[in-house]
Amino acid sequence: MIERYSLSPIKDIWGLKEQYQRWLEVEVAVVRAFEEKNEAPKGTVDKILEKANINVEKILDIEKVVDHDVIAFIKGVTENMGDEARYFHKGLTSSDVVDTAWALAMKRAGELILEKLEKYADSLKKLAIKHKYTVTVGRSHGIHAEPTSFGLKILSFLAETERNIERLKTSIKSISTGKISGAVGNYANISPEIETLALSYLGLTPAKVSTQVVPRDLHSEFFNTLALMGAGIERMATEIRHLQKTEVLEAQEPFKKGQRGSSAMPHKKNPIICERLTGMARMLRSYTVSGFENITLWHERDISHSSVERVFVPDACMTAYYMLEKSIYLIDNLIVYENRMKETFEKSYNLVYSQRVMLGLVEKGVSREVAYKTVQENALKAWDERRDFKTYIMNDDRITDKINKEEIEKFFSNDYYLKNIDKIYERFGL
Amino acid sequence: MIERYSLSPIKDIWGLKEQYQRWLEVEVAVVRAFEEKNEAPKGTVDKILEKANINVEKILDIEKVVDHDVIAFIKGVTENMGDEARYFHKGLTSSDVVDTAWALAMKRAGELILEKLEKYADSLKKLAIKHKYTVTVGRSHGIHAEPTSFGLKILSFLAETERNIERLKTSIKSISTGKISGAVGNYANISPEIETLALSYLGLTPAKVSTQVVPRDLHSEFFNTLALMGAGIERMATEIRHLQKTEVLEAQEPFKKGQRGSSAMPHKKNPIICERLTGMARMLRSYTVSGFENITLWHERDISHSSVERVFVPDACMTAYYMLEKSIYLIDNLIVYENRMKETFEKSYNLVYSQRVMLGLVEKGVSREVAYKTVQENALKAWDERRDFKTYIMNDDRITDKINKEEIEKFFSNDYYLKNIDKIYERFGL
Amino acid sequence: MIERYSLSPIKDIWGLKEQYQRWLEVEVAVVRAFEEKNEAPKGTVDKILEKANINVEKILDIEKVVDHDVIAFIKGVTENMGDEARYFHKGLTSSDVVDTAWALAMKRAGELILEKLEKYADSLKKLAIKHKYTVTVGRSHGIHAEPTSFGLKILSFLAETERNIERLKTSIKSISTGKISGAVGNYANISPEIETLALSYLGLTPAKVSTQVVPRDLHSEFFNTLALMGAGIERMATEIRHLQKTEVLEAQEPFKKGQRGSSAMPHKKNPIICERLTGMARMLRSYTVSGFENITLWHERDISHSSVERVFVPDACMTAYYMLEKSIYLIDNLIVYENRMKETFEKSYNLVYSQRVMLGLVEKGVSREVAYKTVQENALKAWDERRDFKTYIMNDDRITDKINKEEIEKFFSNDYYLKNIDKIYERFGL
Amino acid sequence: MIERYSLSPIKDIWGLKEQYQRWLEVEVAVVRAFEEKNEAPKGTVDKILEKANINVEKILDIEKVVDHDVIAFIKGVTENMGDEARYFHKGLTSSDVVDTAWALAMKRAGELILEKLEKYADSLKKLAIKHKYTVTVGRSHGIHAEPTSFGLKILSFLAETERNIERLKTSIKSISTGKISGAVGNYANISPEIETLALSYLGLTPAKVSTQVVPRDLHSEFFNTLALMGAGIERMATEIRHLQKTEVLEAQEPFKKGQRGSSAMPHKKNPIICERLTGMARMLRSYTVSGFENITLWHERDISHSSVERVFVPDACMTAYYMLEKSIYLIDNLIVYENRMKETFEKSYNLVYSQRVMLGLVEKGVSREVAYKTVQENALKAWDERRDFKTYIMNDDRITDKINKEEIEKFFSNDYYLKNIDKIYERFGL
Repeated sequence: MIERYSLSPIKDIWGLKEQYQRWLEVEVAVVRAFEEKNEAPKGTVDKILEKANINVEKILDIEKVVDHDVIAFIKGVTENMGDEARYFHKGLTSSDVVDTAWALAMKRAGELILEKLEKYADSLKKLAIKHKYTVTVGRSHGIHAEPTSFGLKILSFLAETERNIERLKTSIKSISTGKISGAVGNYANISPEIETLALSYLGLTPAKVSTQVVPRDLHSEFFNTLALMGAGIERMATEIRHLQKTEVLEAQEPFKKGQRGSSAMPHKKNPIICERLTGMARMLRSYTVSGFENITLWHERDISHSSVERVFVPDACMTAYYMLEKSIYLIDNLIVYENRMKETFEKSYNLVYSQRVMLGLVEKGVSREVAYKTVQENALKAWDERRDFKTYIMNDDRITDKINKEEIEKFFSNDYYLKNIDKIYERFGL
Repeated sequence: MIERYSLSPIKDIWGLKEQYQRWLEVEVAVVRAFEEKNEAPKGTVDKILEKANINVEKILDIEKVVDHDVIAFIKGVTENMGDEARYFHKGLTSSDVVDTAWALAMKRAGELILEKLEKYADSLKKLAIKHKYTVTVGRSHGIHAEPTSFGLKILSFLAETERNIERLKTSIKSISTGKISGAVGNYANISPEIETLALSYLGLTPAKVSTQVVPRDLHSEFFNTLALMGAGIERMATEIRHLQKTEVLEAQEPFKKGQRGSSAMPHKKNPIICERLTGMARMLRSYTVSGFENITLWHERDISHSSVERVFVPDACMTAYYMLEKSIYLIDNLIVYENRMKETFEKSYNLVYSQRVMLGLVEKGVSREVAYKTVQENALKAWDERRDFKTYIMNDDRITDKINKEEIEKFFSNDYYLKNIDKIYERFGL
Repeated sequence: MIERYSLSPIKDIWGLKEQYQRWLEVEVAVVRAFEEKNEAPKGTVDKILEKANINVEKILDIEKVVDHDVIAFIKGVTENMGDEARYFHKGLTSSDVVDTAWALAMKRAGELILEKLEKYADSLKKLAIKHKYTVTVGRSHGIHAEPTSFGLKILSFLAETERNIERLKTSIKSISTGKISGAVGNYANISPEIETLALSYLGLTPAKVSTQVVPRDLHSEFFNTLALMGAGIERMATEIRHLQKTEVLEAQEPFKKGQRGSSAMPHKKNPIICERLTGMARMLRSYTVSGFENITLWHERDISHSSVERVFVPDACMTAYYMLEKSIYLIDNLIVYENRMKETFEKSYNLVYSQRVMLGLVEKGVSREVAYKTVQENALKAWDERRDFKTYIMNDDRITDKINKEEIEKFFSNDYYLKNIDKIYERFGL
Repeated sequence: MIERYSLSPIKDIWGLKEQYQRWLEVEVAVVRAFEEKNEAPKGTVDKILEKANINVEKILDIEKVVDHDVIAFIKGVTENMGDEARYFHKGLTSSDVVDTAWALAMKRAGELILEKLEKYADSLKKLAIKHKYTVTVGRSHGIHAEPTSFGLKILSFLAETERNIERLKTSIKSISTGKISGAVGNYANISPEIETLALSYLGLTPAKVSTQVVPRDLHSEFFNTLALMGAGIERMATEIRHLQKTEVLEAQEPFKKGQRGSSAMPHKKNPIICERLTGMARMLRSYTVSGFENITLWHERDISHSSVERVFVPDACMTAYYMLEKSIYLIDNLIVYENRMKETFEKSYNLVYSQRVMLGLVEKGVSREVAYKTVQENALKAWDERRDFKTYIMNDDRITDKINKEEIEKFFSNDYYLKNIDKIYERFGL
């Protein structure tokens, strides 16, 4: 991932030093299990930890000779050990260490993302509460439909985010799967009990059946979850992009002090964060394609998944993390123009209330057919002549004969449309 | 979907008559909720059901006039009703009916797929049990690695299938989401209580927040699950395709009596079912791309998801169902050549036991370095001269001096590699 | 493909009768080549054509017995032939016929799509000409930027369409590739000369090297081209969707007479065609994923591509065709509100001309720094107070001292921004 | 892209210094065009080049203040200039510079890839020539089919590569598209003539119509081409992976001297390069998904494409380049076991010649029906009893009565199957 989108701490997971550290964690966890099961003398782990030394350059030097990364790692780390070295990597094959350590890396990345995702949910929640009763126009097909609450829009993003939190938790559980089962997954040189115990020390679970590697459907699921999360953010970003359009301008992404809209036009505040998020959601979608293809390995494994994962796992995780960081900033600092939201109704001449007038007539005993025709006549005029719909209604005897003007006035209030907002918020304990 | 891949009963879900039937189910569920909440007189549902008549041709005729499918449906269905018609579609918008009915269709499809998937798991389980102790070579990178159990290969597919069953159950729950919340999801003309009650009659849950439609991340998740399931089947099919290769021929997909391998070559039994499954897994992957893109609709909805879903939801469901149908047949009738599996070890001159010999020397006190060198020398000769590795071992004094021939003989047994198979099976209660 | 999106004549390509007809075309082309090369007596083709009889039901009945579609076809078609039957299918394998006939089907579909695509280009051209000098606001990031020509927007779609026409022509050439080279592509039983000649009769070219089948990169390329074309249409549809938004309403997709915007709101004319096109562009993108995966077949072929192609080739072609049909209708009948386009400038208070004012000052010798500051001061006021920018400029002595009001007035004309439109159009010979 | 897959010189394109250098190239090209058209004094370019100084750190420092990368660049570069600075960036907007420079970067990357791709074609050509007459079994569905030439397999990869070379050349032409047309593509402040001239100096062509940016279908096409190229390499790599399987071992990817197959098994030479290539082909496919989605920008541009391109353009280019580097090494050093290829025929008991025997009988006047039955009887025996098919044939009177043994012997020769190989090679001028 390019520097620009690589944020700490998630970017630090992928360093070589950190990788060796995880390999060591795995090796030590196995020895600890040996100790526990009396397959190694008590104290072996302590001795190993005392002597184990991760010297990245030295390991790389050894690798140049032996041309095998795990062997080089073992040689480098055990160099100064005594007899306890016998228990180091005992009964393991490289993939046991590498794949289990990879699970550790993904799990840690997943947890960092989850933490941010929950913060994003908090931000959405705050904004939703703030604008619970902020009236705005609801739009279908980009066309004004009926009044609604701006908070409800945000609440819809919160609901989706909550689903994505659940999905992410499930996926983290899935990727927290290790394997210490040997070259073809049959536990020829190590017992399932040691695997279970060692993995438990690492916060991981054994794959119920592994081949040489952990089954890759678990990783594909993780990619899919990130893409779903990305799409959720894209949906939010797209809403803001729409609301920030010059003709609408009901909301605006934050502008840093001193940030300049291009050239001389001071209104040129572009929703560039939202657009960036939109692009990044595409990236997260892209990664899923390879994720799916990585599942079908040949026999007990081929290594075709490896190149993909080396690049796409860190990239997808860092992209997701970056998106959340920016989304939180965006929601926390979103500029909302409530007055413009009110003005918006005028842009469709208050026609969004037309159905309400029609229902009013029906309630007064007018047939639905006649009511519809009467209202539509006025509505068409308002639309064509581009003037306030209410004026026409107030001047139509067929209507005012049935409903007095005070009542009519009420039809043009937004309370009717927000009367169930409380109940929706209650679903979130809000 | 083309006829060839459209199997009953899943294909019958998507007919027009069935769609109208579901729309009626939804409309009636709402009236039933009205009754329950005393918003409609007792008996209204019964009257409606007595008079409601789905005449497909008539509805289509009406649609030609009114140019709106739901309005045509309502007109057609309520035609002979009396006063109870007032409660039919009361307070609803088209999307309430259409989207909720779509949930019913998807849920039913999902359940049919789940049923098949569970049968597929059963088939895998039976085969895994049958071949629990069938020794076969494990391969990494397509190269012989170590002995393993053929049943264990199958068990690995079972484990993946069990994960897919869990995923599918979750996804069915996700798509079992309806909405009866009006034009922009604010319950302007109907109460959340009615929604919850009506959906409960249908076995559905309300979207915590809906817009004009049910949020599409729920559908995308379903597409992803089907693609994961497809990839799991592809992994199995790819294994069989490999095992059926002329040079391997350890297993073979069933041949119908009388089915002919092309031309004059009787061995030309092609794994065409497995290849078809491979192709279909690609199709399921393809659908996910649109699934993700369908999530970001504009504002309270645009209808861009609709064309995609009309085609891809039935197609994905039918493809998945067809794949399972064929996979069950495949696994139930798989031809396994146990004798060929044994012969396979000769193809790598019993070199798969070399590590075991080396470990034997180490156990006898030989240093790992010397043991490795000694064994590798013999192994290289066996490989180059293409003769049985054991012969070389038995004739190497450096080895026979340390280990007697009976012991060496044991190194070339497969029991060592299968000793933990029982424990793995126990994880499945087998 | 569902009926709704299956239009004649492209849908008629995929019928069984039509498939058998193409198979016959291929078989006959080979015999014609035999005749030409004196490998069959003159008149053989005529005799074959006289006797060949495609009876779909009979062929299907035979297939039930022989369980092989091509053999059944041959038996059914040659039934009444005399000695000339000896030359029918002579030296061919099934794939020679099936894959070459598939090329014919794809080529025909491609040509139908091309014809529509060229019509779509014509429609765009007409609209571009009509609105060459229709001034509208150009927007970047959804924010007003500078004046431009509405025709130029359309011309941009035309330019993209012209590229897609070129791509489609190239792709049609690619898919017009047949093969008559035997079971593994080595011409064991037929000569390359016969292949070349026979394919030339069919308007096809031989694959330079084939395996058992035509290489699938050629088909993948075709899927990609359709997806690019779809994205081009989506770009156009998205523009219209934006222009049709209530707050903008500068253009509108055609409304059929009598078509009803939902409920009582007469302005509820939804861009449903554009939204449908958007969804369908997603579908075309989806197909490419499988297209790419179909390339890597095992050895001289496996049949995993077949299931994908049976479904996705017709579906992609019909989707593309449908999209073009609708796009032509859309462009031919697009409603353009020129007056609203003019009004739009007021929505950003004529600030789109601010840069022009600044440059005017610079031309009068004011330093860029001072000019910028002066203009921005006024611009900010206009934006904040939401009033016409020109008024502020006209009342700022620092400006009017340097530039007389007539000159200033000219800065607020659009001619400046359209002065090079003619030159752009000239690139299209317009 | 991670260091491991980033090779020089292609990785050096993406550095910040190199980016500024390209921006300068673009700026200077425009001034050169001014000079040519007498819109700037002769010598201006020389003066600019003399004074222009790219100091990365200084530019970054300025950017911190002005928060705009292009403005910072201009300030930094023009710092020491005199009056000639007036012509620097005159009439341009940022996108003119950035997008045109991006075209330069992509073009250069494309050309580096093309160079490698042509070398890869050369390597394939050499290998194809070397093995023109190396007989090997052709396989369909993974099952032995008929004899063919190993060189022909390679020639098939060459043919595909030649197509990819053509595609890449077309795509390079497409991405070699710049734009100097202003903020919304209407040439408000610069003339089309200057654009054409300036771009010609850079080896680029103007977009026939641009918006604020170059149309992104051109870039999507490039991604698609890289993915097609990747799939072509994957097809080759998959063939080798199959041929290297223990049971087949007809070919093997090169092993570096000293490289170690895991553990004690000397045959454990894994096709890890081929598997890596397979994974990377997936990556290239993934990038296309975003490529397609980047086409539909809002109005005259939104910047959602930018994040995607910053990451995926370099990554896709470097992945493609790396794949070619490895593929050339692979093909140049491929180990081909011709003797094993011969042995392979025994694995199907010479049954691949059965059809030839049958045709021989037909030529001797035996009816096709009888001939088929006779041959199949023997073939079935050979297959079931796993012994040489020829032996059975030689001992069947029904056959030897019609054909003498010398003739029969000839049926089991491979010449028949390779007789047209020369003609296929001639298509390549070989």
